[in-house]
Amino acid sequence: MQCLWLENKKLALRQVARPQAEPGEALVRVHLAGVCGTDLQLLAGIYPFQGIVGHEFVGVVERADGHAALTGQRVVGEINVGCGDCVDCRQGRSRHCAQRTVLGIVGRHGAHAHYLALPVDNLIPVPDSVSDRAAVFCEPLAAACQILEQVPVSAQDRVLLVGAGRLGLLIAQVLARTGCTLRVVARHDRQKDFLRQQGIALFAEDEIPSRWADVAVEASGNCDGFHSARGALRPGGTLVLKSTYHGKNEIDFSSLVVDEITLIGSRCGPFRPALSLLSQGLIDTETLIEDVLPLAQGPAAYQRATQAGALKLLLDCR
Amino acid sequence: MQCLWLENKKLALRQVARPQAEPGEALVRVHLAGVCGTDLQLLAGIYPFQGIVGHEFVGVVERADGHAALTGQRVVGEINVGCGDCVDCRQGRSRHCAQRTVLGIVGRHGAHAHYLALPVDNLIPVPDSVSDRAAVFCEPLAAACQILEQVPVSAQDRVLLVGAGRLGLLIAQVLARTGCTLRVVARHDRQKDFLRQQGIALFAEDEIPSRWADVAVEASGNCDGFHSARGALRPGGTLVLKSTYHGKNEIDFSSLVVDEITLIGSRCGPFRPALSLLSQGLIDTETLIEDVLPLAQGPAAYQRATQAGALKLLLDCR
Repeated sequence: MQCLWLENKKLALRQVARPQAEPGEALVRVHLAGVCGTDLQLLAGIYPFQGIVGHEFVGVVERADGHAALTGQRVVGEINVGCGDCVDCRQGRSRHCAQRTVLGIVGRHGAHAHYLALPVDNLIPVPDSVSDRAAVFCEPLAAACQILEQVPVSAQDRVLLVGAGRLGLLIAQVLARTGCTLRVVARHDRQKDFLRQQGIALFAEDEIPSRWADVAVEASGNCDGFHSARGALRPGGTLVLKSTYHGKNEIDFSSLVVDEITLIGSRCGPFRPALSLLSQGLIDTETLIEDVLPLAQGPAAYQRATQAGALKLLLDCR
Repeated sequence: MQCLWLENKKLALRQVARPQAEPGEALVRVHLAGVCGTDLQLLAGIYPFQGIVGHEFVGVVERADGHAALTGQRVVGEINVGCGDCVDCRQGRSRHCAQRTVLGIVGRHGAHAHYLALPVDNLIPVPDSVSDRAAVFCEPLAAACQILEQVPVSAQDRVLLVGAGRLGLLIAQVLARTGCTLRVVARHDRQKDFLRQQGIALFAEDEIPSRWADVAVEASGNCDGFHSARGALRPGGTLVLKSTYHGKNEIDFSSLVVDEITLIGSRCGPFRPALSLLSQGLIDTETLIEDVLPLAQGPAAYQRATQAGALKLLLDCR
């Protein structure tokens, strides 16, 4: 089959054998796959990975031994695969299993290919009401939903979101649905236009009031974004760290203590709430699609995804 | 009256006029006052303050215009005085009011004196069952109790406390009462002896297991303590920052995101739970008293408080 293979910071089309579905796993024929910021970080060599990249997908189960009912089902999939045996797995935190593999990120070939393999337990059927073009957003939308799993946000809260990239624009929509007073710091005109169309208000970077926000979400992927978010928080407020970036960040711990600030790291999230939002048509994903390119043009899609302000590049893997 | 006056990193006995109780304030004759790590930081010039130091006290209300019933009452007192008018004060966060004064710390003369003045609303009567020698621990014990206001800790949790100084030994006792599996990292033999007497188990600094703790509390006052606490946390765990220290700390934000760690800054706490614990005799404060010196020997008390492993120095201000 054809795939996008990453090796030594280079991405190339390659022909490889179809993945072997291990016992308990299903073979999935990929329909659409998304290019994510994490994929670009892998390509930049920030995390070590060699193999088939990609972790955002929707596809159809081609074969799942012992699970006949699943065959032919359209599915999305939780990307973390725990060992099933450690204390984290036993206590329901398999996404944090130290021995985990992660689709297209850690020790497991990914979704930028004609086929992928994932445990049957990781797969979630997609209702007919959700198109492939929407379902492929399930994984990043789940990551956006994770914020609300970790921090209660209500209509009484003032929330600042710093960063309006591919993930940020999903986060903005999820936060807006809580009825909170939401302001977003966006850099690019297309992001601003999208937010305005959604009825979501903006703050310019230089007009963020101090002590304004009950909750701030940092999704900009850089240190400046952290400091903007921190500066906007009221005492006792909560800062959600939603983007990873290389290197260390210097922060003033005493100020966190004196102001009793909470920092929360937030990564992957629950697929079912995300699918539910998509099936009800409550999240605009269609406008977030920059373009759909065939898998064979994968390297070009990655190239376009790196451009400033680029929205979601999808790969058609059929 | 006599007081301990701080100016230009120097502490000296000084004769000053009794404080004027403003409208709504009470004049309190101080019985006992404690020397706290924050007092030592003020003396070291880490925070700017000039005037009478001290914020841990128990005393008797000498006069409270319009509140006759309070006169003669033995009291402890919440040390933060909000403006009463800003959004933080109106929403119940007067401890975080940007215009607040803080007894002996910010813009308000403190407790290392024969008399102090505080708003009537800040004072909490001390039941007869609580001696002066116990009541004087109410403020730091409230700071220890604040941890449980911010983080639910149950008998199912594994909790690591790094640091067993004056505050740490109160925190250890508060945490132990939850029934959690508690381990404490202590440096000095007296701290270790006290903890063992309390039936609280220890970890040596070099034997802290990784991914062990559901909750870690950093009360060591230094960067190493933070890294020990962080290293002990399981993914999804919570790190409570309980000590302030000068300067910035370098941390790896990506690891906080990937492991979904929560950092919580924790400062002052609620007096009523602390008084309740003291009135039930559930916290050993007596063993934590290093010595009681007369106010006139205040500078010597501060000197002794700076010695490694020193427990609580009290000033008799009568």
